[in-house]
Amino acid sequence: MISFACDYTRTACQEVLEALSWVDGQYAGYSEDELCNEAREMVRSMCEASDADVHFLVGGTQTNMTFISSALRPHEGVVCAKTGHINVHETGAIESLGHKVLTIASEDGKLTAEDVERVAEDHRNDPNFEHVVKPGMVYISNPTELGTIYSLEELTAISEACHRNGLILYLDGARLAYGLASPENDLSLPDLARLCDAFYIGGTKCGALFGEALVINNPALKNDFRYIMKQRGALLAKGFLLGAQFLALLPVIGEYAKHAITEARRIREALIEAGIPLFIDSPTNQIFPVLEPESPVLARLQERFVLDPWPENTYRITTDWGTSSEDVDELIAALTED
Amino acid sequence: MISFACDYTRTACQEVLEALSWVDGQYAGYSEDELCNEAREMVRSMCEASDADVHFLVGGTQTNMTFISSALRPHEGVVCAKTGHINVHETGAIESLGHKVLTIASEDGKLTAEDVERVAEDHRNDPNFEHVVKPGMVYISNPTELGTIYSLEELTAISEACHRNGLILYLDGARLAYGLASPENDLSLPDLARLCDAFYIGGTKCGALFGEALVINNPALKNDFRYIMKQRGALLAKGFLLGAQFLALLPVIGEYAKHAITEARRIREALIEAGIPLFIDSPTNQIFPVLEPESPVLARLQERFVLDPWPENTYRITTDWGTSSEDVDELIAALTED
Amino acid sequence: MISFACDYTRTACQEVLEALSWVDGQYAGYSEDELCNEAREMVRSMCEASDADVHFLVGGTQTNMTFISSALRPHEGVVCAKTGHINVHETGAIESLGHKVLTIASEDGKLTAEDVERVAEDHRNDPNFEHVVKPGMVYISNPTELGTIYSLEELTAISEACHRNGLILYLDGARLAYGLASPENDLSLPDLARLCDAFYIGGTKCGALFGEALVINNPALKNDFRYIMKQRGALLAKGFLLGAQFLALLPVIGEYAKHAITEARRIREALIEAGIPLFIDSPTNQIFPVLEPESPVLARLQERFVLDPWPENTYRITTDWGTSSEDVDELIAALTED
Amino acid sequence: MISFACDYTRTACQEVLEALSWVDGQYAGYSEDELCNEAREMVRSMCEASDADVHFLVGGTQTNMTFISSALRPHEGVVCAKTGHINVHETGAIESLGHKVLTIASEDGKLTAEDVERVAEDHRNDPNFEHVVKPGMVYISNPTELGTIYSLEELTAISEACHRNGLILYLDGARLAYGLASPENDLSLPDLARLCDAFYIGGTKCGALFGEALVINNPALKNDFRYIMKQRGALLAKGFLLGAQFLALLPVIGEYAKHAITEARRIREALIEAGIPLFIDSPTNQIFPVLEPESPVLARLQERFVLDPWPENTYRITTDWGTSSEDVDELIAALTED
Repeated sequence: MISFACDYTRTACQEVLEALSWVDGQYAGYSEDELCNEAREMVRSMCEASDADVHFLVGGTQTNMTFISSALRPHEGVVCAKTGHINVHETGAIESLGHKVLTIASEDGKLTAEDVERVAEDHRNDPNFEHVVKPGMVYISNPTELGTIYSLEELTAISEACHRNGLILYLDGARLAYGLASPENDLSLPDLARLCDAFYIGGTKCGALFGEALVINNPALKNDFRYIMKQRGALLAKGFLLGAQFLALLPVIGEYAKHAITEARRIREALIEAGIPLFIDSPTNQIFPVLEPESPVLARLQERFVLDPWPENTYRITTDWGTSSEDVDELIAALTED
Repeated sequence: MISFACDYTRTACQEVLEALSWVDGQYAGYSEDELCNEAREMVRSMCEASDADVHFLVGGTQTNMTFISSALRPHEGVVCAKTGHINVHETGAIESLGHKVLTIASEDGKLTAEDVERVAEDHRNDPNFEHVVKPGMVYISNPTELGTIYSLEELTAISEACHRNGLILYLDGARLAYGLASPENDLSLPDLARLCDAFYIGGTKCGALFGEALVINNPALKNDFRYIMKQRGALLAKGFLLGAQFLALLPVIGEYAKHAITEARRIREALIEAGIPLFIDSPTNQIFPVLEPESPVLARLQERFVLDPWPENTYRITTDWGTSSEDVDELIAALTED
Repeated sequence: MISFACDYTRTACQEVLEALSWVDGQYAGYSEDELCNEAREMVRSMCEASDADVHFLVGGTQTNMTFISSALRPHEGVVCAKTGHINVHETGAIESLGHKVLTIASEDGKLTAEDVERVAEDHRNDPNFEHVVKPGMVYISNPTELGTIYSLEELTAISEACHRNGLILYLDGARLAYGLASPENDLSLPDLARLCDAFYIGGTKCGALFGEALVINNPALKNDFRYIMKQRGALLAKGFLLGAQFLALLPVIGEYAKHAITEARRIREALIEAGIPLFIDSPTNQIFPVLEPESPVLARLQERFVLDPWPENTYRITTDWGTSSEDVDELIAALTED
Repeated sequence: MISFACDYTRTACQEVLEALSWVDGQYAGYSEDELCNEAREMVRSMCEASDADVHFLVGGTQTNMTFISSALRPHEGVVCAKTGHINVHETGAIESLGHKVLTIASEDGKLTAEDVERVAEDHRNDPNFEHVVKPGMVYISNPTELGTIYSLEELTAISEACHRNGLILYLDGARLAYGLASPENDLSLPDLARLCDAFYIGGTKCGALFGEALVINNPALKNDFRYIMKQRGALLAKGFLLGAQFLALLPVIGEYAKHAITEARRIREALIEAGIPLFIDSPTNQIFPVLEPESPVLARLQERFVLDPWPENTYRITTDWGTSSEDVDELIAALTED
């Protein structure tokens, strides 16, 4: 069975694997080594953010919970789309650290500047405001959990709405490389560094064995962050493994992401051609066909491929840095064969 | 200005005030005194639940957070209507102790047995169930935050749905007396004790200075509860003040509640007669007229009365044990005068 | 049996009881009423701290947990004497909200400026400092749990040590009135307001039915505190009951406290005269005789009086605002009769 | 500079590195793959514990906090030696999840059955027991943070004391392989599985890139553990990386550990021969010489080697699976050269 169920089924791209086999000698623990320092410098340079703090963590949920709990006071909550990963697929990690997730309905997984304004305004105007969780941060993901992406204009508007209302803007970039590699994208890393108080560049789903690079731009949010990483079990003893991976991955992450997007778009087009409706039209590496339970296409696909079942007869088909074009050919053939 | 904004604007009914002035001598601390023991016995007897554990706490939010955090494991959440008090008006107290509030849309503030079944079923069928907060408890309030009440049939169905699915059923009775006193009510305290794993009989809004009597019926939830009360700051040093109040209040709480309901129903009828629409038709002590911003009735009311503004041009008018019929007369007159 | 076990065995002093019976009419909820505002003004005036924020809470554990969790970031802990109430008798309330209590050994329940300096210095010099909880606050109680008190010189030195090292100084005044009434005391409320970032004036043990007045002097710690009160279940619905009590109590609290001290000192002198050793010589309302298990004095005392057993054959004898001189006469007589 | 500062300075032993380069194809996420299942089977077989639940986590702090918070109720604390890792070097991770760490003084980093009995007894006899954190678990580490180990007799006694008193016994095995490889050891994995409710076999410090294998033996503690792993950010997306490593490591871990012990004992003997006192005489891979600030030996060592500074002029010298005998030769030479 070939799996298109998610983008974390394989080890890592060749460059990352080689880097690990080359890492020799001894390194300081807990990311205080030269590999991490070099990787931090590389991130800062790619973001044109020479003052940013860069921290390497192991996974996405860990990064979200560590940053969010570090930045908020106890009575503050984090605003996100109803589909946001922190709301639906982290087993309440944010709440487990004391903070309510304040959700906003969204068709495409995205928030708008108007959403942000309305939440802030509603709270300010609430006569019982002290009895209600105070919005303290806005969480967005790019690409979103539905594969959609923000334009520069949209992100700029959200950033302005956040800062006008005293809200921290945090962007979950678990699949950021796939977003930036989309032909529809007009955002850059320097844009993110300029517009977001913090964001992370995902490694786990984009070519690394594991690892996320958190970039904190707002100086007010930098203080003592490593304490909180340690407290959350998020300070890897052999942190140099993260530094080594990002040093190897970052120069090639864009190319690998482009490959994934190319393959995803081939699948998307074949689906459209086959007359299969899409739950949402995503420009990144996740494609969401709707396949009725009795559909022969579904039966053919499930014979040879693992797809990710979503609600309402939707399936998620995911490509990644390591997806082979031959596997995609086979998938496409299965759509149309009779 | 006469306030109809809420049901905690006055000290306490005469019986409670007298009781406190009579409480003389010395008492053991932390509710280990004879007054509390007698009051516990009275509650058990009224509930026909001789094995129930009865604890006295100071307020409703405190009672909710203490019981819920005592009963759930870290990954479990509490299911409630979107309008549920724990979801909207406790500044995230439940989340602050680590538990997600899992909301269900509801027109009338009530949950149904079907809602409970669906939540449990959805979780069981979720292929990513371990990545999602596990429903561990169902929270309902009676009356609800919209003044509506459960029938015996409805509560029986919810209780069965909960227990079929391994969910704890907890009922917030901040205004329970007003619910039981409603002419539409067919529930009794023994029904609650039989059907709910735990519930509380609210004192603060129903004639006491303060205080809620938590009744834990499920033996599995009784263990070490007083430790957790202390940990939450919910073990009143002079607990005998709670015992004394409930001893004085419980024999008369029904009569006082009936008075509040009578006055509320007079207001409701006058509103209907005046052609003012109701946001929801509540059979208890909270009435929800919709009054447009420019309405002359609203202007007249706000000149002499404090109402509680709700969203969408709705106002809450609340009566209580101490509402004077003369004040209600005045309010009704203001509806119709020209 | 007459109880000298603690100082929360009786309702409240006459002035407080009368105030409650006079409180008539309707009040805004959640301490936003005029009685609370007047009481706040009275506290500010007594503290000569016109800018202080004053909040009324129900009990001591609640006040400690609410303030401490509001002021600290997640990785920060609170330094206190090993005997500190937050360390030994609050069922881990501080830890339950995420913060480690960092204890210092102390013979007399007090900390010194040197203790504070050493804790701060040790942390700064620790090569693994990020792996260790960061001291963020110093908690002291006055009187301490052993009845001892701080001098103006000692408190000044501690305050300076805290502020030199970026530590918040918080003083638990559950029995503050008994401390200020001690003949050995040279501290005043304005001293406390000047030297502490926050402290509370205890009502529960000093003449009120319940209630503590928290005074926040440091502007950086004031923001959004009422949200956190609500989140902790510490915002009393009928907050006006707290305002009314403090308005009645504060003008007379000093006199009542002096009475308790006078009676405590009579007991202390009688114990010394009877040759009974004291575990510690306290100048306030708690006296700690050591009474061997077989001692006939112990037998005689326990026949008629409830004492509070402490470790190592020590007993705590407590007086309060309501202790009758006749009861003390009896206790003293029991020490010496044969 | 050659580092003897700790045992996590190098990537991984050859077998682990090779395994990762061989892991090919696609795997299910979140440790639901065949490699993890095989590795689980291997652990169960080595522990002679066919019913044990085995979970793979990334690091030690993460494993401790996830298991402890899963097993305790909110008012329960975890008993450990004052030197225990959870008490001193996890930035309060346990408290951050709500649980007090209850410390016991210990000269050698070990607890005794008598310690356990006394803690349990003291709590039972405390008249204010509900105001005190309830001991719910005993945490020990083997080897301890001071390199000492438990004998079968000692561990059996502790296990019996725990279970007599309703306490969970949890053993932190971050360096377990080095303990089991010590010539003084008489414990086996099946002993641990029989005597402990849960323990973990450390990979990070014993030859893996990262990873700890948690073994839960007590059926009452198994339920829903993966939910809590996810909630704590401890469910690695590419969990198969953990399975692959343990499959490669477990067959050789004992040999690697023996090597580390052999080198550590050479250092220990050289120190004794050179007349350098040991802070504690450890039979495992951590050696604790006391070196005065002015000592020429210290100066010589620090010229070429990184040691780990401990309090009171003590230094920690650590060997591991990858320590080269030549480096140890050099270190020993530096002790005696003049």
